[in-house]
Amino acid sequence: MSELRDSTAIAGIGSTAFTKDSGVSPLTLALEAITTAVADAGLALGDIDGLATHHVNDSAAPHQVASALGLDVSWFHEEFGGGSKAPGVLGLAATNCHVGVTRHVVVYRALNGRSALRMGGSGGGAAAVPSSDLQYQVPYGLVSPSQTYALGARAHMARYGTTAESLGTVAVQQRAQAVDNPRALMRAALTIDDYFDSRFIVEPFRLLDCCLETDGACAVVVTTTERARDLAKPVVSLSGWAWAIGANGFWTGADDLAHGSGASRVASRVFAMAGVGPNDVDVAELYDAFSISVLLQLEAYGFCAPGDSGPYVLSGATARGGALPVNTHGGFLSEGYVHGLNHVCEAVEQLRGDAGERQVADCEVALSTGQPGYISGMSSAVILRRM
Amino acid sequence: MSELRDSTAIAGIGSTAFTKDSGVSPLTLALEAITTAVADAGLALGDIDGLATHHVNDSAAPHQVASALGLDVSWFHEEFGGGSKAPGVLGLAATNCHVGVTRHVVVYRALNGRSALRMGGSGGGAAAVPSSDLQYQVPYGLVSPSQTYALGARAHMARYGTTAESLGTVAVQQRAQAVDNPRALMRAALTIDDYFDSRFIVEPFRLLDCCLETDGACAVVVTTTERARDLAKPVVSLSGWAWAIGANGFWTGADDLAHGSGASRVASRVFAMAGVGPNDVDVAELYDAFSISVLLQLEAYGFCAPGDSGPYVLSGATARGGALPVNTHGGFLSEGYVHGLNHVCEAVEQLRGDAGERQVADCEVALSTGQPGYISGMSSAVILRRM
Repeated sequence: MSELRDSTAIAGIGSTAFTKDSGVSPLTLALEAITTAVADAGLALGDIDGLATHHVNDSAAPHQVASALGLDVSWFHEEFGGGSKAPGVLGLAATNCHVGVTRHVVVYRALNGRSALRMGGSGGGAAAVPSSDLQYQVPYGLVSPSQTYALGARAHMARYGTTAESLGTVAVQQRAQAVDNPRALMRAALTIDDYFDSRFIVEPFRLLDCCLETDGACAVVVTTTERARDLAKPVVSLSGWAWAIGANGFWTGADDLAHGSGASRVASRVFAMAGVGPNDVDVAELYDAFSISVLLQLEAYGFCAPGDSGPYVLSGATARGGALPVNTHGGFLSEGYVHGLNHVCEAVEQLRGDAGERQVADCEVALSTGQPGYISGMSSAVILRRM
Repeated sequence: MSELRDSTAIAGIGSTAFTKDSGVSPLTLALEAITTAVADAGLALGDIDGLATHHVNDSAAPHQVASALGLDVSWFHEEFGGGSKAPGVLGLAATNCHVGVTRHVVVYRALNGRSALRMGGSGGGAAAVPSSDLQYQVPYGLVSPSQTYALGARAHMARYGTTAESLGTVAVQQRAQAVDNPRALMRAALTIDDYFDSRFIVEPFRLLDCCLETDGACAVVVTTTERARDLAKPVVSLSGWAWAIGANGFWTGADDLAHGSGASRVASRVFAMAGVGPNDVDVAELYDAFSISVLLQLEAYGFCAPGDSGPYVLSGATARGGALPVNTHGGFLSEGYVHGLNHVCEAVEQLRGDAGERQVADCEVALSTGQPGYISGMSSAVILRRM
């Protein structure tokens, strides 16, 4: 498996505008992000021989993309799943490039997550997630991810004394990044007072604890590191990736919320594959559907001790200029919710040194994570490196 | 890519009973098939570190299986898609074993395809396939796969003079295999007169042209060939696999129905990877949702010339004892419809020499295919070899 470390790379990235109403189909969004990413890599569409995506039920499928762009692909992949999956899909694309099944794979995610099917909703406009897991939740009125994560936040507060200010500080720190991110949906400066003034959605979550449901698409081009060296942009290699299915700490009442999770199993695997540890990570793009998931992952990935994520965030460590800048694009809370792949695009920009005003100095190693596994147990993550 | 050829193997197979009403959930079916396959390989459940499946909307998800069996998996994969996908999923499992991400992956498919969500239906009991492709079909009343494939059958008949007798002979030949298959749902002997006596479903398809919607599950264990040599059963290696997205010949009016398809693109790739050609194939398990798809694949894979599949089948070549026995278990038309993985299980039985009365002599190379790509363009296939 060590032969996989750094043998492949992300050679191109592309995004559409992130909006509340794209006015076009997910397929149109996908094609824009894909053509942008291919051009960014200095490739032609005819070079693309693999397509991979993940989705729940709103997407542009690989066969639709291939048909629209006239591609003859030797691998296509349509993973069923949401936030836990984007890093894992990247890993599969990397593996297929490593073994030569494909030369250049586009991994993409496109959705009208705001104007069409809303994952966070619970009414007629909600995405009907066809998962039999829901049969165990809905009878108790637990129909929205915000409710599920609120249970975890409550448990963390009760067990560790985590405060609302810690949750709010995640939102405030990420907004301070987004003000310098032209892609971000929310760029107005935010204070902790603004946070406390925002209305409750599901206690203890206020509006600003919850991600921005978004219309948009992102795409990245994966190829071998050897080929990437001949392409247009600085090489950002795929050092490690991992998948795991852990216990669901919210339901099981595990002693340690972070360490029973999929994220903690992913953490040990992804660090081992990449040959680095938490101290080597220069920037962490952590899946932040809700503020609490940032706290949980800071513990699961060993950036701080179990239960200490509240004080760790309040110390400023995760803020702009801190020891571990987190969600340097503003994350789902301020940039937009493209289900994980926008985190990867930001990590690539940081590693290339292209992040402008929000650039992290000497950025060499980035972690980008998927949903930490508190709803389904599933998670995945990827570690990227500037070569 | 040639390093992948024969580097991995199928070490175990398992199935549930195939029925019209299982009375249990897809998860229960999956667990039975999986534990059977793991035992067949001579492994323990704790050896399994990967889970992969594909489905449209009725399934047992990997995280549910992992939870039920207490597995800690380092890769899990839930491919969105139907008949085109099973061989491709096997290829991914093989690749992850080859590179060492996983040691032993179970690939499974479980569904209550008859008693619950029926893919072939069009009313309230139909599987609600969440594909935006349907938006272009439904306004014309084209709501069921049988209708779509009927267009292809009509075109083949008009263009090449293919007869109803050719279609019926596919059904008759496959039933002649199923009579000796204890797993088969339909084991009563069948004549061409019985075929002509069966009622039309969608012309030119009679009842016996259409696959049996089925409740059931299949599972196979994939590992490296090196490890498989130390396990319980004769080694059946994965020699080649391929995915492709082709043109949809039914819609585009391509000159050559077979050769514009995903299946024809898959054919050249899978033969190249395995280092064999059509003449080397001892047994072909061809995706047979409808009789016409067998004819189309005989041409796409080069077993006969374009347009000649009708006479080729009538010659007896594809029958029991013929030059190229096809669907030696009875296929979807007589054994049951487990969406492709039951074809793979039969290929393994034949290569092991375990197929009893229906054993093909000197069986060394088997082809198992997915849906040939006439609905979505997508297809995949795998070539297995007795080591």
